[in-house]
Amino acid sequence: MIIDVHGHYTTAPPALEAWRKRQIAAIDQPALQPSVAELQIGDDELRQSIEQNQLRLMRERGADLTIFSPRASFMAHHIGDFQVSSTWAAICNELCHRVSQAFPENFIGAAMLPQSPGVDPKSCIPELEKCVKEYGFVGINLNPDPSGGHWTSPPLSDRHWYPIYEKMVEYDIPAMIHVSTSCNACFHTTGAHYLNADTTAFMQCLTSDLFKDFPTLKFIIPHGGGAVPYHWGRFRGLAQELKKPLLGEHLLNNIFFDTCVYHQPGIDLLTKVIPVDNILFGSEMIGAVRGIDPETGHHYDDTKRYVQATANLSAEDRYKVYEGNARRVFPRLDKALQQQGR
Amino acid sequence: MIIDVHGHYTTAPPALEAWRKRQIAAIDQPALQPSVAELQIGDDELRQSIEQNQLRLMRERGADLTIFSPRASFMAHHIGDFQVSSTWAAICNELCHRVSQAFPENFIGAAMLPQSPGVDPKSCIPELEKCVKEYGFVGINLNPDPSGGHWTSPPLSDRHWYPIYEKMVEYDIPAMIHVSTSCNACFHTTGAHYLNADTTAFMQCLTSDLFKDFPTLKFIIPHGGGAVPYHWGRFRGLAQELKKPLLGEHLLNNIFFDTCVYHQPGIDLLTKVIPVDNILFGSEMIGAVRGIDPETGHHYDDTKRYVQATANLSAEDRYKVYEGNARRVFPRLDKALQQQGR
Repeated sequence: MIIDVHGHYTTAPPALEAWRKRQIAAIDQPALQPSVAELQIGDDELRQSIEQNQLRLMRERGADLTIFSPRASFMAHHIGDFQVSSTWAAICNELCHRVSQAFPENFIGAAMLPQSPGVDPKSCIPELEKCVKEYGFVGINLNPDPSGGHWTSPPLSDRHWYPIYEKMVEYDIPAMIHVSTSCNACFHTTGAHYLNADTTAFMQCLTSDLFKDFPTLKFIIPHGGGAVPYHWGRFRGLAQELKKPLLGEHLLNNIFFDTCVYHQPGIDLLTKVIPVDNILFGSEMIGAVRGIDPETGHHYDDTKRYVQATANLSAEDRYKVYEGNARRVFPRLDKALQQQGR
Repeated sequence: MIIDVHGHYTTAPPALEAWRKRQIAAIDQPALQPSVAELQIGDDELRQSIEQNQLRLMRERGADLTIFSPRASFMAHHIGDFQVSSTWAAICNELCHRVSQAFPENFIGAAMLPQSPGVDPKSCIPELEKCVKEYGFVGINLNPDPSGGHWTSPPLSDRHWYPIYEKMVEYDIPAMIHVSTSCNACFHTTGAHYLNADTTAFMQCLTSDLFKDFPTLKFIIPHGGGAVPYHWGRFRGLAQELKKPLLGEHLLNNIFFDTCVYHQPGIDLLTKVIPVDNILFGSEMIGAVRGIDPETGHHYDDTKRYVQATANLSAEDRYKVYEGNARRVFPRLDKALQQQGR
């Protein structure tokens, strides 16, 4: 089985964005905010938005199941207050739940959280619980910078975040560390902010002893780990300067990287440098880079081609990257699959 | 000849840091600020600090000449106002000038600028002119984020920076885009902020048409380009989405990467992905990562070993990386070498 751990609902019907625009336009006039009931997306429309896009490509490329969360750039936690984020997160998560209900063999949910700059992360717990208990979601996306490129929250190692971690440990769910749209003009969202956040999060973990406090906490650093694998020697050396244990012991029981790296040499480096047990197949398809690479004639985000082609992985390794590691890192996914007899 | 384009005076005698501490302590009491004359570093002491460190390692590792600038993390443009930065930059640049006078065959200067958050970059021109005209410096370090991790300046493509670019073009000097210490708790200085800035700067250039306005402007993106080469497919794809030309035409007449990547797989990727004409040898030795890699028994920052060992470069390619490209990107270096008969 091939499990793509990094999929977002980037193809939701246009009514979703239209509703969000109305919500944003009325941020300062709560009385004018659209009601949740005003957003109507029919089952057929929802099915179509998946069948013609993600599911079509999964079939063409040969992936079976996607861990599916709301569109990352649309989370935009910096917009409005907690109430705005809360309503928006509930809508987006419910849509992903409906996708997983419509295609139970192909999609399973991961939650966005109703984060809001300066608001205690504890406020995210009810949405998290609903998604896990009612929707059967198997993971969350945690935004280390809800300010959208101003980085005003404490590092991930700060106790500020512990209420989320306690719930993650209780439910045995991992978090993908994933920022959203940048509202800082210095940072292009998908070309700088996403990759910077990956590197930043890794280094926040490296300098801390977070995983001593939470030995079973699991983070997925997306986009192939930002700059981390390319600079693996630098990070090994920095850990050494800081008198930390070797990275394998210090971080690799808890940190995993996906394969969202959009060319062969990048995947070759990732699979050479990072232990295979720490690599999860992901594509973030129909995301930041939707075009066809003129050098290969294939879509940039068809990452399975690179994983297939790399000389660094054996058949057993590929099983781990495609399925085994995902079942281990997402125990609730494994249980759900077993219940389906898979 | 082997030219290391990325060296900082990280080993200056302790009197320098002591003076800086006094300057910082008295920021709010200008009358108590130490005078420049109070900083005394003798010629012997200065020679020793180089001979026992950079020059010793250059000889051991086999590098001939280093383009030498003030310690990057000490620039700390976020501290104090323009006057504080201006005095500090003048001191640090003069020390690098003295090093280049003491060892004219081994060191040549690149300037730090007296940047200060919110201050017009035009204010840096007098120091830049002094360094080029009086000291014979061949390049500058330009900090895209003088706020130290808060990213409050406009992107490098903004006209805000044009006064610097006009001078760079006039004097035919390149800029290494190099941030300094992070005062944002989210960003570890050398493990996150440096690499993030590299990626950010590249993407600021990619989304803009800066090099249409300045066709001869040259930037060196240090630390192997941050996350850029590892995600080269992503950046090619993003340029495509943005209807920009192919990266070779759009950016690679103006942007160059150094080899400050501290393990073999990273250098292998860099030299596979980035055209050889865009790679300059650099080590940033005695910098962020000073230890010995237990996997190789050699210093992480002995980047010449990786450049020597990679299968991706021919002898002619190595000549370009070690010398030819540096002479082309730093025309004033080339002239200075020719005057020395080299």
